[in-house]
Amino acid sequence: MTRKVDLNADMGEGFGPWHMGDDTALLDIVTSANIACGFHAGDPDVMDKTMRRAVANGVGIGAHPGFADLKGFGRRRLPIPAAELANAVAYQLGAAQAMARRAGGKVRHLKLHGALANMASEDQALAQTCYQAALEVDPDIVIMVLAATEQEAAARVLGCNWAGEIFADRAYNDDATLVDRSQPGAVLHDAAVAAPRILKMLEAGAIIAESGKHIPCQIDTICLHGDTPDAVTMAHGIRQHLEQAGITLAPL
Amino acid sequence: MTRKVDLNADMGEGFGPWHMGDDTALLDIVTSANIACGFHAGDPDVMDKTMRRAVANGVGIGAHPGFADLKGFGRRRLPIPAAELANAVAYQLGAAQAMARRAGGKVRHLKLHGALANMASEDQALAQTCYQAALEVDPDIVIMVLAATEQEAAARVLGCNWAGEIFADRAYNDDATLVDRSQPGAVLHDAAVAAPRILKMLEAGAIIAESGKHIPCQIDTICLHGDTPDAVTMAHGIRQHLEQAGITLAPL
Amino acid sequence: MTRKVDLNADMGEGFGPWHMGDDTALLDIVTSANIACGFHAGDPDVMDKTMRRAVANGVGIGAHPGFADLKGFGRRRLPIPAAELANAVAYQLGAAQAMARRAGGKVRHLKLHGALANMASEDQALAQTCYQAALEVDPDIVIMVLAATEQEAAARVLGCNWAGEIFADRAYNDDATLVDRSQPGAVLHDAAVAAPRILKMLEAGAIIAESGKHIPCQIDTICLHGDTPDAVTMAHGIRQHLEQAGITLAPL
Amino acid sequence: MTRKVDLNADMGEGFGPWHMGDDTALLDIVTSANIACGFHAGDPDVMDKTMRRAVANGVGIGAHPGFADLKGFGRRRLPIPAAELANAVAYQLGAAQAMARRAGGKVRHLKLHGALANMASEDQALAQTCYQAALEVDPDIVIMVLAATEQEAAARVLGCNWAGEIFADRAYNDDATLVDRSQPGAVLHDAAVAAPRILKMLEAGAIIAESGKHIPCQIDTICLHGDTPDAVTMAHGIRQHLEQAGITLAPL
Repeated sequence: MTRKVDLNADMGEGFGPWHMGDDTALLDIVTSANIACGFHAGDPDVMDKTMRRAVANGVGIGAHPGFADLKGFGRRRLPIPAAELANAVAYQLGAAQAMARRAGGKVRHLKLHGALANMASEDQALAQTCYQAALEVDPDIVIMVLAATEQEAAARVLGCNWAGEIFADRAYNDDATLVDRSQPGAVLHDAAVAAPRILKMLEAGAIIAESGKHIPCQIDTICLHGDTPDAVTMAHGIRQHLEQAGITLAPL
Repeated sequence: MTRKVDLNADMGEGFGPWHMGDDTALLDIVTSANIACGFHAGDPDVMDKTMRRAVANGVGIGAHPGFADLKGFGRRRLPIPAAELANAVAYQLGAAQAMARRAGGKVRHLKLHGALANMASEDQALAQTCYQAALEVDPDIVIMVLAATEQEAAARVLGCNWAGEIFADRAYNDDATLVDRSQPGAVLHDAAVAAPRILKMLEAGAIIAESGKHIPCQIDTICLHGDTPDAVTMAHGIRQHLEQAGITLAPL
Repeated sequence: MTRKVDLNADMGEGFGPWHMGDDTALLDIVTSANIACGFHAGDPDVMDKTMRRAVANGVGIGAHPGFADLKGFGRRRLPIPAAELANAVAYQLGAAQAMARRAGGKVRHLKLHGALANMASEDQALAQTCYQAALEVDPDIVIMVLAATEQEAAARVLGCNWAGEIFADRAYNDDATLVDRSQPGAVLHDAAVAAPRILKMLEAGAIIAESGKHIPCQIDTICLHGDTPDAVTMAHGIRQHLEQAGITLAPL
Repeated sequence: MTRKVDLNADMGEGFGPWHMGDDTALLDIVTSANIACGFHAGDPDVMDKTMRRAVANGVGIGAHPGFADLKGFGRRRLPIPAAELANAVAYQLGAAQAMARRAGGKVRHLKLHGALANMASEDQALAQTCYQAALEVDPDIVIMVLAATEQEAAARVLGCNWAGEIFADRAYNDDATLVDRSQPGAVLHDAAVAAPRILKMLEAGAIIAESGKHIPCQIDTICLHGDTPDAVTMAHGIRQHLEQAGITLAPL
């Protein structure tokens, strides 16, 4: 069984005058922060503040690139040619690296955001394009992939450092995709339910679908959500539960 | 007398469907390219294309950060706190570094754009803020400064690598500032006039103001403009003239 | 004494995924809503939602144009030529008119936002430029002006419909400008203090400065703020207090 | 046979420092201008300038709304819910109306731009959503539709004023769609070829496909393109040819 795991959450998702999520509270709970890079959210000032806090808390810094779509928060699938996707990922990673360096840290991992992540989880070529661009900027970067999806397949083909991720609060279908949010039970809101489920997956070394089916995979990190009203309570509950079960929580 | 000098021009100033300047022609003439970083012009695709061409031509790559103001092309003076300026410069430099790395090159210098450059040439503290941010990202970067201005003063205080720049096509006042564009003779349009003037400055090791006054300064690079109709002809004429005079044109 | 007054607040200041203020609660309290038009905040969807709610509540709709500066929320003073300011105001007003029409309402007033408002309160020519542009789009529109400032002077010169505005929660200097936010007492946070003060001003037909000085002026509307944590409580308290004092609250 | 037809072209497609097309020359040739509204191109200043020129030349003004996508010039298909599309169209139309009013004119027609137009030509519901939104803003507006497509079907269902449009320079498939640009002969570059073809279509009251097939339809306006190098020559040639054939060119 995995005795050590990383807890990650998306952060730095404000923009200008607007805030989103309680980054300060989450940075006391997670071990890795996926920080928006200014295309779907975040701006240089938000990035700087978030990264300095992450460094102060010993939280691992990740670049979290998305589509250049503030209005849609990077959640709309944009039809963008592969070469442009590669450029967009490289640009955002580079910006994040510079901000991290000034904050006294380092970008250690990269995780795709929103619709770009969804598309990459279904399309290995697209995932590979994005990851390849990131690796050309930093060959040692850890690519955070949705476990057992085309994202993972792409990382395996590239032979790069990667970490498998599962969701703490989302139900899974038998093919390792997420149950649609419109379905009952698709999203878990109670740490008392979510945490034991996560523990079981860690023990099994597998995603456990709603049906009970086990999908064996490498689980390196657990995604907590930061933008819901009960996000901090949920995150806190899960962390506590895992620690009590003897799991070590540590950055990638 | 300086026997070697760099020729620089601003480039990569298109955005999405819009073009500006004839970068392809200019990259055959200059030895350094100041490439817009997406805030006042440029986008990841334009940056990628411009940098790959620069690498292919052996032209030195510079980051050319400006205000986040596409509509105003970075030419409007924005009242932005020092900390935000520092973040904006670091972000753009980081993005440019990543794009350059993927293009097989390296960002070797940084030059401020437009209103940000004008403000920095008058305000040493502001210049220092911007340069300090860049140096925190890359301590070896060469800061391109407007010779004999507060930009140069800032670079000297920081003790960093820097290169002094003069304009090929602009008349100077006695205090090393540029003659306002609204004045007759402020902008030179004829290489046959501009080139000998530049040669004289290189020989004198000084800016020569309209009045004839000499302002001694270090001249490492000459700025050519790329966005005027006769830009390429002018740039070509100046390059030819300098070469005929035995000046070596080489990147910083 | 004025027995009737309008209560206004800025609204529709979200953008894409981001929210600001509790518009739903405020629309139960105010009689006029100044709705952001997409340049400094707001987007067509936020505008539509806010306007439909305003119409449903019988709240008067105002266009609230600002600088095209999402990042700075329209609070940075941008150096923009008069002709461009006029275009920006007209564009935003037109957009708001269309959205209001579809929502079953009508834009009845216009109030400048943020830095643009501040600049107009100090510069009659600039105020006149903005108002003139609005009047060319709708000659009957009511211009909401900061009472006793250059905004009011501009409206008087134009001979247009206008309404004088005072702030419920800001202390005034002797020249009718606002006490700087950095000063103690500059912002009132308690309706029990703010409401009686407002009542006194309505009775006196004058702004009452911190010093006690009376600055006679026409008071047609009172500005409540919507973007502070205690905004709704404060707004509710002031409304209640005014009603108990027999003041009729009604749209312009 | 139609003895009168409108010539239209897209215009005002610059943004900030960037230009596109030769609007001044085109405004001497066309009888209707489809003016970008700031979402995919255009800004309030470009709109103002373009509209004033159109008014001066007696050219009919049209709003030309597109996706909010400057980088992609509105040519990328964005997956946007119907309600948001409606809001985006209404917003842009309103802005255009205000700018036209200040310029001494009036928005008389509306034509969708780029990917939004393409999507609407294939999807009647989507077309209807967009047109309905425009009609709620102005019930008398003329909707310019791609003849014999779902756009036309939507306009017929709505029972609104509409004008059928064909392209001067594009080859047609048998189902009235355009031959893909990648195919040889898809785009005509010679007025001597394009003009007689257009004349034949006007005489036939039908689109004539590449195959020779006639697709009967109402032809009210002919689209000229403005953003190609030979656009003005082409436009001029077509106008001349039509006039020589006795066709009256007049706004809708």
